[in-house]
Amino acid sequence: MKLLRFGNKGAEKPAVLHTDGTIRDVSSLVGDFTPETLSPALTRILASADIGSLPEVPSSVRIGAPLLRTGHFIAIGLNYADHAAESGLPVPSEPVVFSKAPSCLSGPNDDVMLPKGSEKTDWEVELAVIIGERCDYVEEKDALSHVFGYAVCNDVSEREYQTERGGQWVKGKSAPTFGPLGPWLVTTDEIADPQNLDMFLDVNGERRQTGNTKTMIFSVAQIVSYLSRFMVLEPGDVITTGTPPGVGLGMKPPVYLKAGDEMRLGISGLGEQRQRVVAR
Amino acid sequence: MKLLRFGNKGAEKPAVLHTDGTIRDVSSLVGDFTPETLSPALTRILASADIGSLPEVPSSVRIGAPLLRTGHFIAIGLNYADHAAESGLPVPSEPVVFSKAPSCLSGPNDDVMLPKGSEKTDWEVELAVIIGERCDYVEEKDALSHVFGYAVCNDVSEREYQTERGGQWVKGKSAPTFGPLGPWLVTTDEIADPQNLDMFLDVNGERRQTGNTKTMIFSVAQIVSYLSRFMVLEPGDVITTGTPPGVGLGMKPPVYLKAGDEMRLGISGLGEQRQRVVAR
Repeated sequence: MKLLRFGNKGAEKPAVLHTDGTIRDVSSLVGDFTPETLSPALTRILASADIGSLPEVPSSVRIGAPLLRTGHFIAIGLNYADHAAESGLPVPSEPVVFSKAPSCLSGPNDDVMLPKGSEKTDWEVELAVIIGERCDYVEEKDALSHVFGYAVCNDVSEREYQTERGGQWVKGKSAPTFGPLGPWLVTTDEIADPQNLDMFLDVNGERRQTGNTKTMIFSVAQIVSYLSRFMVLEPGDVITTGTPPGVGLGMKPPVYLKAGDEMRLGISGLGEQRQRVVAR
Repeated sequence: MKLLRFGNKGAEKPAVLHTDGTIRDVSSLVGDFTPETLSPALTRILASADIGSLPEVPSSVRIGAPLLRTGHFIAIGLNYADHAAESGLPVPSEPVVFSKAPSCLSGPNDDVMLPKGSEKTDWEVELAVIIGERCDYVEEKDALSHVFGYAVCNDVSEREYQTERGGQWVKGKSAPTFGPLGPWLVTTDEIADPQNLDMFLDVNGERRQTGNTKTMIFSVAQIVSYLSRFMVLEPGDVITTGTPPGVGLGMKPPVYLKAGDEMRLGISGLGEQRQRVVAR
């Protein structure tokens, strides 16, 4: 199932992308998609509903992030060997973990705002994992059963803030609009193998990133299990799992986003995002 | 005003510490203290209520964290020059910023659980700042008006996870029970000067940390203003602002927590916490 949220910013309603391609308002079945409502029960309610009988939403509607808010917005760094190489950093022996501010969550097609004075804002297409059940010392073999679904995430990054302003990466990963998520939250039953998904990102129509989740250093199951030894993961936590090669930082010379640029990015089965870059 | 939450874990209700020292149930006035309900309006509602006429709660009741959940749980590292020195790290030129998982939030007197196999779990008494209004490029002179209140926080830290497992500190700061907060969320009107608060922490009755917020490298106002240039702060975000000298890591040789230890910590005007350390 493909869950989404539509409407003006701050006033979104929950919906499902119906099998015929139309968007159907499910607000009569669930108040909203939030960390509190993500659960196997929600999946059952939606799976048993006659989605085609629910109100159709015009396809021109704005799509918001597929969750009202995230719990912990976690990100994994350097999780593709080629990306570590282009960043000039060694392949990590354990997952590199950092957080994004929950306030950076953004709709998949909303403008991405450059922070004031920013000269090093960069793109990163990533597979995001949305947790559906509490994880506390979860074994790798059980990890995927705790996942609610997947989505495209652009882990927008300000490289100066990330690495030249005092060490911890959260500073460069958290500006408002730095976390476009969606268009859909795709439930796990639709993704046969999260480790075989093609991904791409274009800037101004030029292909910058091409990858496949099969070249991840640490798989989704390994990441969920690993994280659950350091912290409890809860429903609504979002883990964005690292980016393949082709970011602006890795170009020679580096190329960063400027106002007026347009990004388009997608992952097979999870849909596409398109963002315009604007100044603040 | 001193806000608190009482009752069994997961079933807490909101309360106010009345001027006569009794705890009064305010659940008839506000559903709970959450990121959604923290606001100047809440302060007005509580300030205008006849607290003494509300139901009294037995003083033996369990006290929970003063918020149902945090938004972004942010922490500042090395914010006291003497603590940076004992950690063997240079005094930072800008605030060191990292996140704690929101799931580490814990009641002020709840047991602190050592992660499985942990040998380097450490204590850190800190002044926590609870945001009450959205901050986006807030000037230092305006920063404190965006603060809802203050609380004691024990920024419990696993030093091996923090620094020996791949770089970013969030791994060592996020285990369940690693974020005791409270007993009270004290509104700003009761704290004349957040930069002149005495703080202490004892382990098994021995004084380990003694400090005062006047020796912070970056003040509360500077931290709030600084953070708001990298991310939007929202009501319910908690910023724990660094610890004075005297942590276990800084002892020669280092001394860490073990099951059976008891911590007691407090800050003037903000109350005291007491935690027993237990194994998992």
